[in-house]
Amino acid sequence: MAIDPGFCAPGLDRADALRSDPDGLRAAMMRPGARLLRMSGLDPDIGEDGGLSWGSLAEADPEGDLLLLGLDDGAPRFAHVGHVLAQGQPIPLLWQALAVLPERDAAIYASARSLVDWHARHLFCARCGGDTRIEKAGWSRRCTQCSAEHFPRTDPVVIMLAEHEGRVLLGRQPQFPPRRLSALAGFVEPGETVEGAVARELYEEAGIRVHDIRYIKSQPWPFPSSLMIGCFAQAENDVLTIDTTELEDAQWINAAGVRAAMAGEDAAPFIAPPRLAIAHHLLEHWLETRG
Amino acid sequence: MAIDPGFCAPGLDRADALRSDPDGLRAAMMRPGARLLRMSGLDPDIGEDGGLSWGSLAEADPEGDLLLLGLDDGAPRFAHVGHVLAQGQPIPLLWQALAVLPERDAAIYASARSLVDWHARHLFCARCGGDTRIEKAGWSRRCTQCSAEHFPRTDPVVIMLAEHEGRVLLGRQPQFPPRRLSALAGFVEPGETVEGAVARELYEEAGIRVHDIRYIKSQPWPFPSSLMIGCFAQAENDVLTIDTTELEDAQWINAAGVRAAMAGEDAAPFIAPPRLAIAHHLLEHWLETRG
Repeated sequence: MAIDPGFCAPGLDRADALRSDPDGLRAAMMRPGARLLRMSGLDPDIGEDGGLSWGSLAEADPEGDLLLLGLDDGAPRFAHVGHVLAQGQPIPLLWQALAVLPERDAAIYASARSLVDWHARHLFCARCGGDTRIEKAGWSRRCTQCSAEHFPRTDPVVIMLAEHEGRVLLGRQPQFPPRRLSALAGFVEPGETVEGAVARELYEEAGIRVHDIRYIKSQPWPFPSSLMIGCFAQAENDVLTIDTTELEDAQWINAAGVRAAMAGEDAAPFIAPPRLAIAHHLLEHWLETRG
Repeated sequence: MAIDPGFCAPGLDRADALRSDPDGLRAAMMRPGARLLRMSGLDPDIGEDGGLSWGSLAEADPEGDLLLLGLDDGAPRFAHVGHVLAQGQPIPLLWQALAVLPERDAAIYASARSLVDWHARHLFCARCGGDTRIEKAGWSRRCTQCSAEHFPRTDPVVIMLAEHEGRVLLGRQPQFPPRRLSALAGFVEPGETVEGAVARELYEEAGIRVHDIRYIKSQPWPFPSSLMIGCFAQAENDVLTIDTTELEDAQWINAAGVRAAMAGEDAAPFIAPPRLAIAHHLLEHWLETRG
């Protein structure tokens, strides 16, 4: 059963044309079906049914700005743009809520969280230091001094399983829960291909040279705003040279070990990444397709 | 003959560890083999051999900052961080130079151009408006007031061919040269998958619903700093509804038409995108693999 990683379900109609249509946008705000996503800072309020909670636009701070998330079967959906910055890592309660949130609600929340966070981090113009103001219904900001337009940021990240003779390479970062191993990952840099970033990160972090890099699937990751690009690669050998500034440990795990971990068995050699994470699905895909 | 799009060749060893090693970096600058990439603004100076031109670090503005591009067979390579902003579109002379630049030089230039441009656009902190200073050998900037760290930006863009009964969908933007058609494209937004962005852009720009979206290849595009993610998709029908705010025209072209355009024939129904662009290679891949 192949289900998608978290945040991947189709969300709202993004209604791109409405963002640049001030009259249409004002009319959308007046519609009786218009709704505001209830959030506490960057975290979602959860309704009694376990889904996202929506209120009327009257609940928004009259001093604040509204962001058009999109249309839900034609009904406008907004979020409030506060000035809340994420404080460190998301709290455990958020992970618990996300694990049970309906898939479509999780996708809607991912866009909202990334955008609200981006606005809070971009009150000033990086080019001239001037104040910026919201534009295009929250899908850009413009500098009040130099007029530069700034767009929400999405950072591409490669996340990959290197394979060698029936085993996959998994690593752990120092902040992981005990016994957790996951796929290695890193940001794509300016001037790199997806495949170049996969090869560089595996060599930098684990000393492994790879070939036959294959794209598998992608996932938005709203902490704060990444596009996870999931790949497989074939390692030339299994000799690890671990960069301990990035990884606490890295190990080759065979299919039996991965299967035990994915089944949550006590005797498994590691604890698998959660279903929300694309790494979980890369491991599942590997078990299903490794021939 | 499958050659890669422009900027995709392996470039320098990015020497990630050296960026965070101030002593090592100072030593690298003193090495006799250290070289500075000669640029005029954001454009590359071209040497007599048609490749990039490299000078000594003494040529750098003593008031300016140096950016570590990486190591070339162990020899440090730098660029000078000026405050030059790109003025509109790249000039025709740049395209001509890039068309003949050796592949590896083009890849090195792509990273340099994106980073130099990013520094010029990020002299101030988007969070608090304070001055920023270069850090990590040019791979980040830090705010002198609030200490926020800012990283170079890479914007993921989907670029795709929709296919329907033996024809592919191509479009033209108003600024294209006469008769040029190319693949449709658009930025991946926060909260989207690659596949979600492909489906949304094709529907927004051409009114086409698609399924079976497949990743083909990727390319860095340094104008200013995109990661082009090239895909194929199967269209459900061929009825176009063109968004004329985005596209001047869109057409379905059959294999004979694509083949004639790729061969540069006068009678071709359109002029193909240049070899530098991933769209050219998506068309080539389509001709080779369409069964």
